[in-house]
Amino acid sequence: MNNTEKNKDVVISTRVRFARNIKGLPFPHKLTGQEEIYSVLMKTVNDCCNELFKGKFYKTGEMDKVFEQSLVEKHLISSELVDKPYGGVFIGDDETISIMVNEEDHIREQCIMPGFDLDNAYGKLLRLDKLLASKADIAYDRFFGYLTACPTNLGAAMRLSVMVSLPALTIGRKMSGLVASLQKIGFTTRGAYGEGTESEGFEYQISNQAAVGKSEETIKELFRKAVAQIVELERREREKLKKELGLDLKDKIMRSYGILTNCCKISSSEFMNLLGYVRLGVALGYIDKDIDRIDNLAVLSQPAMMCILTKKVLTAEERDRARAALVGKTI
Amino acid sequence: MNNTEKNKDVVISTRVRFARNIKGLPFPHKLTGQEEIYSVLMKTVNDCCNELFKGKFYKTGEMDKVFEQSLVEKHLISSELVDKPYGGVFIGDDETISIMVNEEDHIREQCIMPGFDLDNAYGKLLRLDKLLASKADIAYDRFFGYLTACPTNLGAAMRLSVMVSLPALTIGRKMSGLVASLQKIGFTTRGAYGEGTESEGFEYQISNQAAVGKSEETIKELFRKAVAQIVELERREREKLKKELGLDLKDKIMRSYGILTNCCKISSSEFMNLLGYVRLGVALGYIDKDIDRIDNLAVLSQPAMMCILTKKVLTAEERDRARAALVGKTI
Repeated sequence: MNNTEKNKDVVISTRVRFARNIKGLPFPHKLTGQEEIYSVLMKTVNDCCNELFKGKFYKTGEMDKVFEQSLVEKHLISSELVDKPYGGVFIGDDETISIMVNEEDHIREQCIMPGFDLDNAYGKLLRLDKLLASKADIAYDRFFGYLTACPTNLGAAMRLSVMVSLPALTIGRKMSGLVASLQKIGFTTRGAYGEGTESEGFEYQISNQAAVGKSEETIKELFRKAVAQIVELERREREKLKKELGLDLKDKIMRSYGILTNCCKISSSEFMNLLGYVRLGVALGYIDKDIDRIDNLAVLSQPAMMCILTKKVLTAEERDRARAALVGKTI
Repeated sequence: MNNTEKNKDVVISTRVRFARNIKGLPFPHKLTGQEEIYSVLMKTVNDCCNELFKGKFYKTGEMDKVFEQSLVEKHLISSELVDKPYGGVFIGDDETISIMVNEEDHIREQCIMPGFDLDNAYGKLLRLDKLLASKADIAYDRFFGYLTACPTNLGAAMRLSVMVSLPALTIGRKMSGLVASLQKIGFTTRGAYGEGTESEGFEYQISNQAAVGKSEETIKELFRKAVAQIVELERREREKLKKELGLDLKDKIMRSYGILTNCCKISSSEFMNLLGYVRLGVALGYIDKDIDRIDNLAVLSQPAMMCILTKKVLTAEERDRARAALVGKTI
């Protein structure tokens, strides 16, 4: 699929997540001090993953703290996993696949793909899920579906989400209306600071809510439709803004680009804000840059990632400088 | 002289002006409706100028209005001359020499040179002045010196001025002190909005005040010393700011450069402000650009100049766009 088919102008990435638990075994929050059980589980997960993907298994407590934090920033692990003494995660080399052990559920399978790419993300994860099911006794109830630690995940135990860039809907003050509409049809919208807030850099995460009683196919279909609608709404609003604001919008975008590519220090918050405008500029054809590089920059500029890139622990002031230096090297 | 000798990091240009009047002829404000007298005077001035320089003579009232305004913007004529029915000006092709007829005095001779270049500006003008004195009967009194319409010009009838860029002294809030000190030793400082005000783009014009009873050599020597002192003060303050503000200053400069070179529209005032920071960036070695091009940009971006460049009369909004477009072509 090319960028247009993946709707990369609006959709930054697609994430599919399955929650799985082992039959007869207490859920993680009830299962304490049972290191040997997790050792077996981690071995099983690692074996299955290695059969299908290139990658590596990391145990919590054994990971470098900065590296661990960078995985959180990249949404490859949750901050909950970090505190678990007997947990771990398999990270695929291309960082699309990450399989957590002993997070909220015994196993959390996740695949993130760039752009809107539900079929590939789902397909990749399904292969692993089938292999795992053949090696481990997964808790499944004919009436409830997959059993999960939190009842909201019961059933398909599948969470679909997209990270979307909605500058025009944000600037045009259409976000609260959209969030409410999505809520009604079972989708949650999160800004950088939680539900319903204005996001940093116009980025929002939209995911399906509890789906008890719905089949995976139904959930996927509803999700596909919702995302298509959001993409359409954002694109229409962009055209509208382009007409209404004209050169004022282009000026704002180009100034953002000018500051971003020339500054010597920049805070994370200003950085994300300017990057949001630059992303819009690329989508509108004002700036001739690769949108993947723009999105990559958002990831690379996170605190822990910058420590990894510069190979040292940075103060906030040093991060602001490193972040500015990073832009020149990346876009 | 190279840029360092001309102190171009601080001095944008040097101007020398002589006021001359014809013996026995009433001063311009008393001499009305005497077209034939000015015709003779203009011919004399034009003949002398043509003997020494390449250029053209323009009569007021016959000039294109936009072109006329562009001469005001470039300080080649005064706005007073524009309204005089029987006036004119010889403009040298390189725009260093401009000789006005029927402004405040019968003849106003002027030479502007880039950087601090008093000797060349003075020397060029002196050659013309001598030639003029041999062809016209210049009003000179052994006691008072050259006679002028305004008594403040009496004597040497010579006004020396420099256009200086003083970002560090402005940012460091040292300007009011400097203006007061210069006042005491006989120099007037003008910002963009008149005496003592904060200038646009950190630019100030500093000139000698009334000099009755002082010889040309004395005036030149005092002026040379004052300029050298200003240059020294500004340079010292720049080093101080560089130490105190460090990356904050560089960041401000580079952001200014980023906005200036990427914006799609920009007001004259913001433009001059950003250009002032960029000029400082070039002087501090942060930006590798030709300082002459920066200074040229300040001239080209004036309203009438932009109409000439774009070959049409522009609205304020169109000028803001043309100004932004100009930057990309010039630096």
